[in-house]
Amino acid sequence: MPAAKPDSFLDLCRAAIGPQHVLTETEDKAPFLTDWRRRYTGDALAVLRPGSTQEVAAVVHACHAHGMAIVPQGGNTGLCGGATPAAGEAAANGVVVLSLQRLNRVRQVDPLNNTVTVEAGVILQQLQDAAREHDRLFPLSLAAEGSCTIGGNLSTNAGGTGVLRYGNTRDLCLGLEVVTATGEIWDGLRGLRKDNTGYDLRDLFIGAEGTLGIITAAVMKLYPAPRARVTALAALQSPRDALALLSIAQSHAGSMLTGFELMSELCMTLVTRHYPQLRYPFAQAYPQLVLLELSDSESEEHARAIFETMMTAAFDAGVVIDAVVAESVQQSRDFWNLREHIPLAQVEEGKNIKHDIAVPISRVAEFIETTDDLLQTVFPGARMVTFGHLGDGNLHYNVSPPEGGDHDAFLANQDTVNRIVHDSVHRFNGSISAEHGLGQLKLGENARYKSGVELALMRAIKQTFDPRGLMNPGKVV
Amino acid sequence: MPAAKPDSFLDLCRAAIGPQHVLTETEDKAPFLTDWRRRYTGDALAVLRPGSTQEVAAVVHACHAHGMAIVPQGGNTGLCGGATPAAGEAAANGVVVLSLQRLNRVRQVDPLNNTVTVEAGVILQQLQDAAREHDRLFPLSLAAEGSCTIGGNLSTNAGGTGVLRYGNTRDLCLGLEVVTATGEIWDGLRGLRKDNTGYDLRDLFIGAEGTLGIITAAVMKLYPAPRARVTALAALQSPRDALALLSIAQSHAGSMLTGFELMSELCMTLVTRHYPQLRYPFAQAYPQLVLLELSDSESEEHARAIFETMMTAAFDAGVVIDAVVAESVQQSRDFWNLREHIPLAQVEEGKNIKHDIAVPISRVAEFIETTDDLLQTVFPGARMVTFGHLGDGNLHYNVSPPEGGDHDAFLANQDTVNRIVHDSVHRFNGSISAEHGLGQLKLGENARYKSGVELALMRAIKQTFDPRGLMNPGKVV
Repeated sequence: MPAAKPDSFLDLCRAAIGPQHVLTETEDKAPFLTDWRRRYTGDALAVLRPGSTQEVAAVVHACHAHGMAIVPQGGNTGLCGGATPAAGEAAANGVVVLSLQRLNRVRQVDPLNNTVTVEAGVILQQLQDAAREHDRLFPLSLAAEGSCTIGGNLSTNAGGTGVLRYGNTRDLCLGLEVVTATGEIWDGLRGLRKDNTGYDLRDLFIGAEGTLGIITAAVMKLYPAPRARVTALAALQSPRDALALLSIAQSHAGSMLTGFELMSELCMTLVTRHYPQLRYPFAQAYPQLVLLELSDSESEEHARAIFETMMTAAFDAGVVIDAVVAESVQQSRDFWNLREHIPLAQVEEGKNIKHDIAVPISRVAEFIETTDDLLQTVFPGARMVTFGHLGDGNLHYNVSPPEGGDHDAFLANQDTVNRIVHDSVHRFNGSISAEHGLGQLKLGENARYKSGVELALMRAIKQTFDPRGLMNPGKVV
Repeated sequence: MPAAKPDSFLDLCRAAIGPQHVLTETEDKAPFLTDWRRRYTGDALAVLRPGSTQEVAAVVHACHAHGMAIVPQGGNTGLCGGATPAAGEAAANGVVVLSLQRLNRVRQVDPLNNTVTVEAGVILQQLQDAAREHDRLFPLSLAAEGSCTIGGNLSTNAGGTGVLRYGNTRDLCLGLEVVTATGEIWDGLRGLRKDNTGYDLRDLFIGAEGTLGIITAAVMKLYPAPRARVTALAALQSPRDALALLSIAQSHAGSMLTGFELMSELCMTLVTRHYPQLRYPFAQAYPQLVLLELSDSESEEHARAIFETMMTAAFDAGVVIDAVVAESVQQSRDFWNLREHIPLAQVEEGKNIKHDIAVPISRVAEFIETTDDLLQTVFPGARMVTFGHLGDGNLHYNVSPPEGGDHDAFLANQDTVNRIVHDSVHRFNGSISAEHGLGQLKLGENARYKSGVELALMRAIKQTFDPRGLMNPGKVV
């Protein structure tokens, strides 16, 4: 790799995107160099903020010419350090952060085609709002939606709470515009439901975390806005009963079932301990809660009638101990608040060792029982904060020290805990990163569990798309 | 490329899969060497019929060692010659047909995970049946379902009538097992709804028509079986009104809407002319018909009530002239029969020039009007047999000579007609192959319309996965 020539390189960038968008001062760069969780802080020669696809292509051209590595960044809300350069990398090799935030236009809404064409830097919430203005739903929804960008969602194939019905970000995308590693623009912005004219480049760039090219725009699917959304909370004895409830719910509600979230008793203990103002609707604690959501194209009454039938069937089957169907939009929000405060309550309680895993839905209960036992053997009294998208087989399986234990000290066990949990996931033919991606955090773990054949194919693709290794080095492969 | 050594190569194959599964006699090979439409007939040194993934890997190894090209084949029902070797190719380079038909086991049904693991040679209808036995739905449905295989469906990313609600074959697949071009086995048989651990190899092999590797097994999604399916036929003035009806239907039925098929008056003329025994439910002809299907997780009564509300809204909006909701399962079948006999009626009427195209749904009417006009200018009186999956923006737009004209002679205009239609598709940012793939039929057309950037990326992928060009040569790229 040729040595970088910072000055002529930066001058090229300034000419391409305007000097005010080439940040080189330490305090200007700082917000782009530390990840949201404050786990990683890196270095970069500059932060580049192009304002259009052509400007992205121009700076990528400049990087290519100068052997400068590129870390693409959206809203900087990733959980695996995928958008943060390595420390010391700027000095060693030359690296820039390429922020897509200024590519923030909603280019076109086509309600009849049920599509929206957006630039990579559009905030997820803005996209949801744009859909709503046209009486449509953009169903991707996740905790960071107020600041994450759709480009970042695509690059990490983000999941969230609507996957059960609408799929991951990948499933919501029909077409992409991408700047390749050599600075060419691929216009794949097709808003088609069917297109069988060659290899699926779109899905290769999606989930690649900016290691193959830079997503600059996308055509995303919209859905008819449901007329009503109603939630219910069900109390159960075990994850096994939760799986039985899932089956009953799918049978009764079909595609109306849009949410199915599991929350263990410990989750609710932490939430009610740290957020006592939140409304917990039961008079007592239960081993497990499930939050169910129905989206109805008819009416709230209809959704509530479906819930009634479904819950009666679940009570009759001995699956559910107690249940409340939300009586109002506010009560639905209250139920979701309980779910969404689990990560925040964990922060208040103290650090724990987090996992974002998936197993086949049918094996979730067995996975929890088996893995809990393995951890208890090595770490007696360890407390698992287990919650997540049961309808997708996706759990946030977080391991805390025994009640009263030292949370920070417990983190020293991270490698051992990860090994137990991820080995267990692997035995269940599961995924060690269900919806957060790999970034730099899980690079080594992934290499450990993937087969040689799969790793070799991934590396060959990387080599083909980015032969000089300039695109987000040290991530994914 | 080293010259093939047929004898030692065939001996290797006989040892690997048994001599009775290495077909070298002309009459044994014949059924595998002509495509379903009888448009292509090719040559092959042998037809290989391995019985397991390991046997597929063994013969691919042998092919690799001998520089022998491989044409993978499923049910041989493709419409673009993707599974047929070129004529003269066997003599020139050495090529074998690798039939996957003996890999026909349903390995596992997991009703709670809503997945089924099947081998590539399983017939689509067997897969549908396996799902039904577990009170589940496998929603892929297309005309060739009695003989096409799921491996072929995956390799061409087949569409069909359920795409509106359930997506293409790609969307129904969670994991693959693939034998690579070098004879290695990639076990990607994960039944996970979420898995963000690297590049999306799955979607790269799907739709690649066997040019990157050979799909030997897959984990496919299942859905809760709907409690009822009800269809309706609506009569309308124009494709524009059909789009308005689609919008109304989506608003009223949401995800219950599982079919939305457009059929022009000419389609019905041909069907009733050649199949007078079929029941046409109206007293008169109408310019356009739409077949709507609702799948309901509640009951037939509920579906019929939704239809009632929806059709009332459509009448009130002046969108629909006449409508019949099926009163029985038999009448639903009658409506689908009208739709499904259009291709057969075309065969009876005489050959025409076929196109399998897609445009954004919102632009379908404009596309039909514009393209009809362009064709009429050059071929006055030409009759367009226009039908298809309007809910997906996918039309079978077939051009016939004027009434009483010579169908065979009209085929001489194929290149001119293709140019007019595909140029028009291109201007609408559409696809020249919506659900049939490229095969050998559309290889040149595709190269004409794809951008240089996209073609270069496709060729780079092909070169990476299959550097010696042995996998289904002359197809896709």
